Amino acid sequence: MQISIVGEAGSTPEIAALAEEVGAELGRRGIILVCGGGRGVMEAACRGAKSAGGTTVGILPSSDPDAGNSWVDVRIPTGLGQGRNVIVARSGRAVIAIGGRYGTLTEIAHALKGGIPVIGLRTWTLSKGSVVDPSIIVAADAKDAVEKAVAAAGRPRPTDISND
Amino acid sequence: MQISIVGEAGSTPEIAALAEEVGAELGRRGIILVCGGGRGVMEAACRGAKSAGGTTVGILPSSDPDAGNSWVDVRIPTGLGQGRNVIVARSGRAVIAIGGRYGTLTEIAHALKGGIPVIGLRTWTLSKGSVVDPSIIVAADAKDAVEKAVAAAGRPRPTDISND
Amino acid sequence: MQISIVGEAGSTPEIAALAEEVGAELGRRGIILVCGGGRGVMEAACRGAKSAGGTTVGILPSSDPDAGNSWVDVRIPTGLGQGRNVIVARSGRAVIAIGGRYGTLTEIAHALKGGIPVIGLRTWTLSKGSVVDPSIIVAADAKDAVEKAVAAAGRPRPTDISND
Amino acid sequence: MQISIVGEAGSTPEIAALAEEVGAELGRRGIILVCGGGRGVMEAACRGAKSAGGTTVGILPSSDPDAGNSWVDVRIPTGLGQGRNVIVARSGRAVIAIGGRYGTLTEIAHALKGGIPVIGLRTWTLSKGSVVDPSIIVAADAKDAVEKAVAAAGRPRPTDISND
Repeated sequence: MQISIVGEAGSTPEIAALAEEVGAELGRRGIILVCGGGRGVMEAACRGAKSAGGTTVGILPSSDPDAGNSWVDVRIPTGLGQGRNVIVARSGRAVIAIGGRYGTLTEIAHALKGGIPVIGLRTWTLSKGSVVDPSIIVAADAKDAVEKAVAAAGRPRPTDISND
Repeated sequence: MQISIVGEAGSTPEIAALAEEVGAELGRRGIILVCGGGRGVMEAACRGAKSAGGTTVGILPSSDPDAGNSWVDVRIPTGLGQGRNVIVARSGRAVIAIGGRYGTLTEIAHALKGGIPVIGLRTWTLSKGSVVDPSIIVAADAKDAVEKAVAAAGRPRPTDISND
Repeated sequence: MQISIVGEAGSTPEIAALAEEVGAELGRRGIILVCGGGRGVMEAACRGAKSAGGTTVGILPSSDPDAGNSWVDVRIPTGLGQGRNVIVARSGRAVIAIGGRYGTLTEIAHALKGGIPVIGLRTWTLSKGSVVDPSIIVAADAKDAVEKAVAAAGRPRPTDISND
Repeated sequence: MQISIVGEAGSTPEIAALAEEVGAELGRRGIILVCGGGRGVMEAACRGAKSAGGTTVGILPSSDPDAGNSWVDVRIPTGLGQGRNVIVARSGRAVIAIGGRYGTLTEIAHALKGGIPVIGLRTWTLSKGSVVDPSIIVAADAKDAVEKAVAAAGRPRPTDISND
């Protein structure tokens, strides 16, 4: 099982602590952590996963195989820049979004487009008019996020046939 | 000058009419319309642009050079699936989002990540906590959307250096 | 009709002259020229096309909308780096390769993989063992290259179903 | 250390046996095997790696997380079609090409473009005019291929600055 973690590169200590806990919880459960391989939330989550004996994959924006944080086990230097975000989103059975800015929003959106469940920790809220879109499953804390991700990951996912 | 139009493939008649008007307004001004080349908002906008003598470009998800709606002048069959959305977003000096679901949201997010102004017509609202993100410039109608896009397109755009 | 031109960024004057002639011939025939938007062969071909009243499209590696040579009409700033080469190859009904190094080879290979005819002017020869692969159609000069590209473009192209 | 294996999806038994041996040799050395995740050479190499206790990564063309052969440990469902080939090529410190058709040629070319050493086993020969390009390092057998890949992987790689 693979779960993707997305979030901002320049995170606050509080957000980084959340990410580290999420990573550790994934590591303890033997779930492979996929992320963008960078700093902030990505680095904290990878460090957490490694501290718990987990495996980490970094889908890097650069084509430099030495790029990425030091807690990444498998490095995929795509050279696609922000184009790699769709790959990060699609490589998990569920996506956990922690904090985040516009890059994180691209990954949330690509996951939702692909029918992949998104669990949110202090991340974006999406609305159409005044109606909040219910697709981001809000978690209370790190453990809750991983539990909700694992539960949601088991559900069938719809095929992506439209291109809107 | 190029402006990108993003929106849902399966649009309502009302949304399609808005898209057609936006396309026509771009065509009248000699602005090249870039879109995903598909149906719904994309097709209506292209039809509008062609009715006003404009030029249209379709960045297609498929690798089939015959794919896309019949109002596309230049067809780019990327074969990248939803991975082509980042290209649609980046190919305009501004992006006009009309209605839209999750695919449209990926394009809005990629534009904002790249510092490209986004003008919205009945599209997503983004918030963090209860604070609405002011980055999507709301337009009142088709003409207003194009005017706001042209005005915003002139502003300097920040370099994309982070990867969050 | 669209035809793609691929070739090296740092071309010799002789190769650049060939590319300019090919571009001019495409322009005279009203064929849209697609290329990587850069220097060398790409710039010379675009200049030739514009001198003959043609239309040019540049699929740029950078995400900078001001990148690319000054003879490009439609700029597609993909931000995908060398990942954009597959798009250049797939966007023509035929590909004309002029000179070229490894980047050009990626585009020749992507075209052949997609069943798109490749016409060669002083470009790569491909062999398996001592058997030359006949898939690159060798042209004698610029006019011959365009004639062979137009003739080959009319042929049905096989569907790409394998992933080898 | 990561090494990429590229080759045809529909391989002969002889080519598949070579691929399996290469995979096993990588597994014995604790080198992570990256490939396109498909059948033929890819499947045989992954099976070999797993039989020797190695780790395998599949960069899939599809966006289906269940796609790919059954010997892949980490699945990256890119959804980019043949656009994923550049990622396969760039994700190894060296690339070993075994047999192969045009898809394999795209990966050889992307590796050479990126300054990544390519080791060949019964694969393409590249020439300009009648001069064979020396960049593909020819190996005699599976063990020789892995030894040459490991030796070449240690060399500095040039930065990719041109776009030809």
